[in-house]
Amino acid sequence: MAEPATTASAAGDRAAELSDAALAGDRRALARLLTAVENRTPIAEAALRRLYPKAGHAHIVGITGPPGAGKSTLVAALIAEVRRAGRPVAVIAVDPSSPITGGALLGDRVRMQSYAGDRDVFIRSMAARGHAGGLASTSGAAVALLDAAGFDLILVETVGTGQSEVEVAAAADTTVVLEAPEMGDEVQAIKAGLLEVADLVVVNKGDRPGAQRTAAQLRAMLVAAPRVARAGEPDRPRPKQPEVLVTTAASGAGVPELLAALDRHRAGGAGALSAAARRARAEAQVWAILADRLRASLSDGDRRTVTDETLAAVADHDVDPYAAADRLLAAIVGREPE
Amino acid sequence: MAEPATTASAAGDRAAELSDAALAGDRRALARLLTAVENRTPIAEAALRRLYPKAGHAHIVGITGPPGAGKSTLVAALIAEVRRAGRPVAVIAVDPSSPITGGALLGDRVRMQSYAGDRDVFIRSMAARGHAGGLASTSGAAVALLDAAGFDLILVETVGTGQSEVEVAAAADTTVVLEAPEMGDEVQAIKAGLLEVADLVVVNKGDRPGAQRTAAQLRAMLVAAPRVARAGEPDRPRPKQPEVLVTTAASGAGVPELLAALDRHRAGGAGALSAAARRARAEAQVWAILADRLRASLSDGDRRTVTDETLAAVADHDVDPYAAADRLLAAIVGREPE
Repeated sequence: MAEPATTASAAGDRAAELSDAALAGDRRALARLLTAVENRTPIAEAALRRLYPKAGHAHIVGITGPPGAGKSTLVAALIAEVRRAGRPVAVIAVDPSSPITGGALLGDRVRMQSYAGDRDVFIRSMAARGHAGGLASTSGAAVALLDAAGFDLILVETVGTGQSEVEVAAAADTTVVLEAPEMGDEVQAIKAGLLEVADLVVVNKGDRPGAQRTAAQLRAMLVAAPRVARAGEPDRPRPKQPEVLVTTAASGAGVPELLAALDRHRAGGAGALSAAARRARAEAQVWAILADRLRASLSDGDRRTVTDETLAAVADHDVDPYAAADRLLAAIVGREPE
Repeated sequence: MAEPATTASAAGDRAAELSDAALAGDRRALARLLTAVENRTPIAEAALRRLYPKAGHAHIVGITGPPGAGKSTLVAALIAEVRRAGRPVAVIAVDPSSPITGGALLGDRVRMQSYAGDRDVFIRSMAARGHAGGLASTSGAAVALLDAAGFDLILVETVGTGQSEVEVAAAADTTVVLEAPEMGDEVQAIKAGLLEVADLVVVNKGDRPGAQRTAAQLRAMLVAAPRVARAGEPDRPRPKQPEVLVTTAASGAGVPELLAALDRHRAGGAGALSAAARRARAEAQVWAILADRLRASLSDGDRRTVTDETLAAVADHDVDPYAAADRLLAAIVGREPE
């Protein structure tokens, strides 16, 4: 499925062609653009430049939680519920399975293949590639493309144990944190961090014995812990305590109530929330592009030699990392930035 | 424990004082420097500039794996084993519990407090703060300080489900990936990604029924999957298949064998491995410092207005992220980098 190597103008032509097709509802073209985004090809840049102004209307819902909480099952149940209401939905599943090569198809995602013939369901599993920050940038670009292509509800599923993954979820308009009833010490501790980014908390596997007790504990934790910050908005006080819902994704119990809560969160107070989330998404994307350009600049032509020598000297502990950063900055800008 | 606000020269004086004390074996001074690193104060920069040239001798061992595999218990057992051999050891536990506020003390770490009076054991829990990339930078700086302070063996424990966390572990001289015998689908998939960065694979909870079978499965997976890449070294072929060991950290069974395997990995072929790992650590640190400086530059003085307006325009979808990145780059360097 990889696009052939292209020159800049060929990339622009191809991007225009795919973008127009994606806007006209061609899902295959949309899928190709997402592949381009994932592989960071020139087509991705050209397409995003073209489509970005058409995005900004969708409700972006982040769904995160520790492994085993049942995120994929819940996403599958949410898709079914949204489709019952006749609404289209797109899903970006940021696949944590392989930070390096990416892309195992997980059990629950196989179930989602039953939507293969439904053009109002678009599911995409994306791997996190490259350096830190790549995750936020790639998922942000993917969300913008799906948004421009007319998906009004976009679910972004990430596993909620890594810093980058939590940042991705927290940059949504509405962040859902999923928990399972029984969890060990380590996961309990993860929970505390995740709750800070939650707009809605869902205790899944509600048919297990401890579910209602876990929900009660979570409500108590949420009252005790003030919300501190989320990406792009330091010190923002939590506007209101997040609701704690109980679902059983496998049977669908509680899922209609969850969709109703998502819609309520979007409608009420969503203006201010979304402005902050949109700003966080914008910042993550712009920063990642900046970082890519600087990296490219550092490995380009003569500068590559300076970069290699400098990093080797740091690796050998002959130069400290601060002096090295100063040297590389000087190589980029011709002087240190003021 | 926070250092008072300091001017640059006062920070330099304080850093010199703490650095000299840390080099002389003062653990309290070392702890303060690590706090400075975690909080990114000017003292951290001054101290690291001073101490970095004295580092580069320690064996850095990354220990990672999914939640519940028993990482902390294994680290505790390794400490006990290393101490029995009369060797000093330092531990950086990158705490995934709170990506935002950081710092719950986990159950197993409480056990490690029994080393409170032992100056040859230094244990530090660090939270991941700030933007993506912060984790690699902070842990890299912490490792350099511990290394300069004379710790010959440094264990870096991270939960292996996030991109950043895996990068941190993979930048070690020796990367140990821990697995538990029984795991769900999601964790199975995580496993595949983790194995790619493993130099040693440990099946912990070896007293459980499935342990030996899991070890056999892992050996089969390792033969099937070529090692693709790790931070800083694309396309490096796996030099040899990683050994798969079985431990029961809670009882200590298999832990002497694990320490022996670590020492063997350091001794044999460690030269080439370490060069690549050192380069990856150097790159992560330098890049994070560069990124910090660019961010500071973008929020400084007049540029802050340009930055804010540009990001707001991206958030409103009036400017695309690539155009915004170009605008901010121009603001930094006065022109676009060549």
